[in-house]
Amino acid sequence: MKPDGFSFTIEKQFEKARAATYQTPHGVIKTPAFVVVGTQASIKALTPEQAKEAGLQLIFANTYHLYLRPGQEVLANHGGIHKFMHWDRPIMTDSGGFQVFSLGASIEHGVGKIANIFPAEEGGVLKTSARVGSGKSLVEINNEGVSFRSHIDGSKHIFNAEKSIAIQRDIGADMILAFDECTSPLHDKAYTKKSAEITHRWAERSLKYFNQNGPKHGYEQILYGIIQGGAFEDIRTESAQVIASMGFDAIAIGGNLGKTLDDMYQILDWTMPHLPESKPRHLLGIGDVPSIFEGVERGVDTFDCVSPTRNARNGGLLKRFDDDGKRTNKFRINIKNARFTNDTRPIDEDCGCYTCQHYSRGYLRHLFKAKEIQGQTLASIHNIYFMEKLFKDIRQSIHDGNFAELKQEWLGE
Amino acid sequence: MKPDGFSFTIEKQFEKARAATYQTPHGVIKTPAFVVVGTQASIKALTPEQAKEAGLQLIFANTYHLYLRPGQEVLANHGGIHKFMHWDRPIMTDSGGFQVFSLGASIEHGVGKIANIFPAEEGGVLKTSARVGSGKSLVEINNEGVSFRSHIDGSKHIFNAEKSIAIQRDIGADMILAFDECTSPLHDKAYTKKSAEITHRWAERSLKYFNQNGPKHGYEQILYGIIQGGAFEDIRTESAQVIASMGFDAIAIGGNLGKTLDDMYQILDWTMPHLPESKPRHLLGIGDVPSIFEGVERGVDTFDCVSPTRNARNGGLLKRFDDDGKRTNKFRINIKNARFTNDTRPIDEDCGCYTCQHYSRGYLRHLFKAKEIQGQTLASIHNIYFMEKLFKDIRQSIHDGNFAELKQEWLGE
Repeated sequence: MKPDGFSFTIEKQFEKARAATYQTPHGVIKTPAFVVVGTQASIKALTPEQAKEAGLQLIFANTYHLYLRPGQEVLANHGGIHKFMHWDRPIMTDSGGFQVFSLGASIEHGVGKIANIFPAEEGGVLKTSARVGSGKSLVEINNEGVSFRSHIDGSKHIFNAEKSIAIQRDIGADMILAFDECTSPLHDKAYTKKSAEITHRWAERSLKYFNQNGPKHGYEQILYGIIQGGAFEDIRTESAQVIASMGFDAIAIGGNLGKTLDDMYQILDWTMPHLPESKPRHLLGIGDVPSIFEGVERGVDTFDCVSPTRNARNGGLLKRFDDDGKRTNKFRINIKNARFTNDTRPIDEDCGCYTCQHYSRGYLRHLFKAKEIQGQTLASIHNIYFMEKLFKDIRQSIHDGNFAELKQEWLGE
Repeated sequence: MKPDGFSFTIEKQFEKARAATYQTPHGVIKTPAFVVVGTQASIKALTPEQAKEAGLQLIFANTYHLYLRPGQEVLANHGGIHKFMHWDRPIMTDSGGFQVFSLGASIEHGVGKIANIFPAEEGGVLKTSARVGSGKSLVEINNEGVSFRSHIDGSKHIFNAEKSIAIQRDIGADMILAFDECTSPLHDKAYTKKSAEITHRWAERSLKYFNQNGPKHGYEQILYGIIQGGAFEDIRTESAQVIASMGFDAIAIGGNLGKTLDDMYQILDWTMPHLPESKPRHLLGIGDVPSIFEGVERGVDTFDCVSPTRNARNGGLLKRFDDDGKRTNKFRINIKNARFTNDTRPIDEDCGCYTCQHYSRGYLRHLFKAKEIQGQTLASIHNIYFMEKLFKDIRQSIHDGNFAELKQEWLGE
C-alpha cells in the first residue's frame, strides 16, 4: 500500500465489520478505532501522557482553526503538529471543508450533521463565535473555492483545494482530507447535487496537488477522498463511485447524514458497497454509541467526534448502566446532579481509568460545582477510557466472531 | 515534639535561616518550603501526580471555601481531605480568618496583605464573587466570632474559634490554624490593637477546643497559633509574645504586613526573636522571590501564596533571566506576548520541568491565545517546578553556608 510508511491489514472480518492493523508513520492504530478531536492542536484539558494513559490511539485536528491560529508557518517552523503539540501518535486533519459548513449552512439552518439527532448546539457543529442558527452565512462558495471571514478577528480568507492541501502539508498530520463542501440536512436535492459535483472537482484537484507537492516533514501522509451527497440515494451512490474511482488511498464519508440515525444507517448502506475493501474508511463527525455499532457493522474503520470529550467538560460522564442496573440515558450521567454530593463511589466501579481508580463521584461533583479545571481533566480521562474500552471490546468481538452479540448486549431492548 | 506523628528537626542553620526536616503524618517536608494554594481541594489545573512530578511537597486549602462547598460533612464522610482529593502528602488549612479579612476589610479598603505591593486584585486577596474595593463589608465581627454571608449563595453563616477547629478536624489537614482576624493595612492602631486582643482570645479558645476534641481521621494534626498586630511594633511584639507563650506547637505570622516589602521585613524583625527556635514557623500569604529570601533569612520555614499558580493560569511564567541575560521583571515573562509566536525554544532552556522538556514558547503562547485549558496546566507545572527548585537551592545554600551569596545573586543589583 502506498504511500510509504502506511499499511492497512485486515486481520479478521465479521460479515462486513473489520478488525485491522493500520500502520502509519507515527505508529500503529488498531481498528475499529475512535479519534478524539483536538481542534486547536491540544487534547482539551489533557496532556498527551494523560491521553495515552487513557488508551488514546490517535487524534483529529482542524485545518481551518490551525490556519487561523497559530498559522501554518508556525506549525511548519516547529517541524509539524506532532512536535508542536508533543503527540507522537497518529494525527488526522480535516480539510477545512467542514468549517465551510459550520460557518455557512449550519449557521443559516441551525442544524448539525444529522438534523434531528444532534442539534448544532450539541456537538454537531464546531463551536464558533458566530451564533448558530443566526441565519447569516459567513462564507461564499463557488467553483474555485470558498471565501470566508475569520471567527477570531473577522479577517477575510480564501480556501481552495490546493490551499487546503498545502496547509495540511505544513501541519503535517499523518492522515489528511481532500477539500470538500459539507452540505446541510436542510439543503434541497438540486443544491446537494451541485455541491457534490463541486466536491468531486475539488477532490481531483486535491489529489493532483497532493501528488505533485510532497510532504514537508520527512514522512509521508495519506490523503482521504470524501464522499458527499447528503441523504439522496442517487447522489450518495454516485459520489461513492466517483470518489472510490479516483485513486485515493483512503476514503472518508462526510457531510449531511440525514435527519435521524436511521437515515445515517441508510446512507451507509448506500455508500459502503462501492468502497474498496482494502482501503481504510473513516466516518466523519460521529461518535455516539449506537452509531458506532451500526457503523462498524457496515465496515467503518475509524470515527471522530467532539462529543465524548465535550460532554466530559460539561460533566457528562460516559457510563453504560446506572446503579440500579438500568441503561443510562445516552450512555451518560450528569455528575453535577445533587444526588452525587456525598457519594464516595467512583463513577463506575468496574472502570479501570485513572479517574475511577482515585476519585469519588462526590469529589468530581465538587470540582464541577466549584468550576475547577481539574474536573474537566478527570472527566475527559474517564470518557476517553470509556471509548477506548468500547472499541477494544468491539475489536475483540470481531476477532472472536461475536460482534453481533456485543451489539445486541449494548443496544438491544 | 507533640503531637504524635510530627517532628521538626533543624539540620543546619545559617545565622537565623534554618534548613529542617518537618515530619508529618503524611510524610516529610524539607524546609524552607513553599506551599502551593489549592483553595477548593484541587491544585488548580493539575492532577496530584503532575504536582508531585513538579516536586510539590505540600499544599494549602481554605476552610471557608470547603465549609461552604462541598461542606464539612462531605469531607468527613470521605475520610478527610487527603482521600477526598487524592493527595497523600501534607496539607495545611487556614482557619477562615483570612476570609474574614478578604470579604470584610479587604473589600472595604480595596487592599491586599501588603497594601502598596499587592493590590487586592493581584493575589493579595482570594478571589470572591464580591467586588474588591466595593466598600461594603460582607462580615460582622464581635468578640464571639464572625457572621458573614456566603459569596456563593448569600446564605448567612457564623464562624468562631470552636467552629473553625471543628471544621478543620473534619477536613483533616495535617497542619491547621487557630481562628484569627486578619486586619487591613488601612486599619488604624486602635482597631488593630483591639483586633489583636480578639485574635488572642480566639487563639486560646482554638487551642482549648483543639486539645479537648481530638482528630477525626486516625492521625494527629498540628495547630498553629497566629500572630497579628499589623505594622505596629508594640502590638506585633506583644502578639508574638502572647502567641508564643500559649503552647502552640507551631506558629504562623499573619495579617496585615504593612504597606511595602520593607515594612514586612521590619515586621518580621520585630516578630521572629520572640518565637521558640524549636517550632515550625509559617509566613501566611507571601510568595514573591524577594520576600522569600528575606523571610528565610529571618527564620521563616514555610510560605504559602496563590501567586505562582495564579500567575501561571494568566500566562505569567516564572523565569529568572530574559534571553539577553537581564533579570526579568518580577521574575516572570508574559507568554501571551506576540514575540513568542514563532519561538521554538522552551520557556527556560536550563529548566528541568515537564513543560520545558516538551513544549515551546510558541506552543504555550498558542494555547493561551486559543484559551486551551492545557496552557494553564503546563504553565502551572513550570511555575511550581520553578518555586521548588528555588527552595531546593535555598535549602542547599543553608547546608553549604552560602545562603547570603545565593540571596545576593538573586536580589543584588
